[in-house]
Amino acid sequence: MTTDPRPQPAAPPPGIVYLVGAGPGDPGLITVRGAKLLESADVVVYDYLSNPQLLALAPKAEAIYVGKKAASHSMTQEQINWLLIGEGKAGKRVVRLKGGDPFVFGRGGEECEALHAAGVAFEVVPGITAALAAPAYAGIPVTHRDLNSSFTFITGHEKEEEYKDPDSRGRKPAVGSSDLDWSSIAKLPCVAFYMGVKSLPRICQKLIEHGMPPDMPAATIRWGTTPRQRTVVGTLADLARRVAEAKLAPPALTIVGRVVQLRETLNWFEHRPLFGQT
Amino acid sequence: MTTDPRPQPAAPPPGIVYLVGAGPGDPGLITVRGAKLLESADVVVYDYLSNPQLLALAPKAEAIYVGKKAASHSMTQEQINWLLIGEGKAGKRVVRLKGGDPFVFGRGGEECEALHAAGVAFEVVPGITAALAAPAYAGIPVTHRDLNSSFTFITGHEKEEEYKDPDSRGRKPAVGSSDLDWSSIAKLPCVAFYMGVKSLPRICQKLIEHGMPPDMPAATIRWGTTPRQRTVVGTLADLARRVAEAKLAPPALTIVGRVVQLRETLNWFEHRPLFGQT
Repeated sequence: MTTDPRPQPAAPPPGIVYLVGAGPGDPGLITVRGAKLLESADVVVYDYLSNPQLLALAPKAEAIYVGKKAASHSMTQEQINWLLIGEGKAGKRVVRLKGGDPFVFGRGGEECEALHAAGVAFEVVPGITAALAAPAYAGIPVTHRDLNSSFTFITGHEKEEEYKDPDSRGRKPAVGSSDLDWSSIAKLPCVAFYMGVKSLPRICQKLIEHGMPPDMPAATIRWGTTPRQRTVVGTLADLARRVAEAKLAPPALTIVGRVVQLRETLNWFEHRPLFGQT
Repeated sequence: MTTDPRPQPAAPPPGIVYLVGAGPGDPGLITVRGAKLLESADVVVYDYLSNPQLLALAPKAEAIYVGKKAASHSMTQEQINWLLIGEGKAGKRVVRLKGGDPFVFGRGGEECEALHAAGVAFEVVPGITAALAAPAYAGIPVTHRDLNSSFTFITGHEKEEEYKDPDSRGRKPAVGSSDLDWSSIAKLPCVAFYMGVKSLPRICQKLIEHGMPPDMPAATIRWGTTPRQRTVVGTLADLARRVAEAKLAPPALTIVGRVVQLRETLNWFEHRPLFGQT
């Protein structure tokens, strides 16, 4: 390999896109690395559920909202991909802030594929996903040595948009979403569903039909890890009715398994003076 | 309710135990809240895999190691519980730092139950679990819209100790650990195993026996998210042989599913100059 001794023309600074998980809602649950990247970002591309307080960490950055608040203002995934590619090619340090974890029902994989195809550098900063954190804040460990040695999280045909963006409407369902193998799912000891409350009666019915005991404990958590957190506990047989009576709306997450019972003693967050459960 | 007008004796300051997830290895993946709690802790109780660099965030705290480096120095879970209770009752701000997430195969639930029973206040700070982060750093999104709408993580009879503490020996297996329902697991689209490399031949064989295609992509990741990260990719049919040939030792995590193929284009971390894959 030879070295060209002549002065080289200055190359434009290479841009980079960081896919950063914003965490489940509590702004303290972003990672240290994610927070530092926000501080040095030129551009922050964010969508609905990412806690707006996190933008305060990036006061100098251009903040671009790509959430899907209304169909007339929606940006398609392809448009988001091109936005990220364009900012990256322009030499910017871009933070793509995504609710929860970028690779958990967040289409982060698709964004990375598009960046790779366009030759734009990217890095991934995992985030705390709601399926772990919302139960933790509701006093429910997703695993317990005496109760379960596996944990599954599932999205359905309403998929992440309804969880991550309660105002989204009629978006294309994920491939395979109506394909859930309920007979296998019903044998799992602990399952979290990133699904809307509208799906809840069907989820509970399917699990019972496929052999899960109707008295299996289950809980639906709305706005997990935030001061608005609210939890409804029941069984497969009655959770949907209880949630309807409590008028819980999206975004909500449902966890099914014996570990839900541990909430009786471990419910630390909703008992704090500031955060009383209604 | 009446108010006693007389001066009251000063009560000892109430202690509290924070169960903090240390994340998967990269010290930048602890949460902002976890890092702040370390800074103000009086006592940090930690075990093996928690990255020792994180202790630098708590220079004034007493650091108590409760890892299980050798049987002769091991502290049982009950001893750890009593240590936490004692420090909490003494009015200390205690951080119980646990590798990954405190509620994912980490016995955090048991520690919270003990604290609750003893009347010691506790809070939980979720952490990034290796099952999400190690694949992310290996270029493998655990979910992808075109490939899977569920993700499962599983521990087995070697359970978390072998993953979280490669030096542990012969600890009591978790209840139900030999109970894994392989016929259901084999139908799941994406599964991560917090299991040792010794179990790998058996895991792959069980999945194939129960109907998972032998050409299903799979990867084993050692020391995920750290500069030592190393990944071996194969299929169910040949991964165990490849891992043995590469002499991968614990701690390692194995992920099985079509998403493993995405690593071909998304492998961002091991391509960075500092972190070359061997």
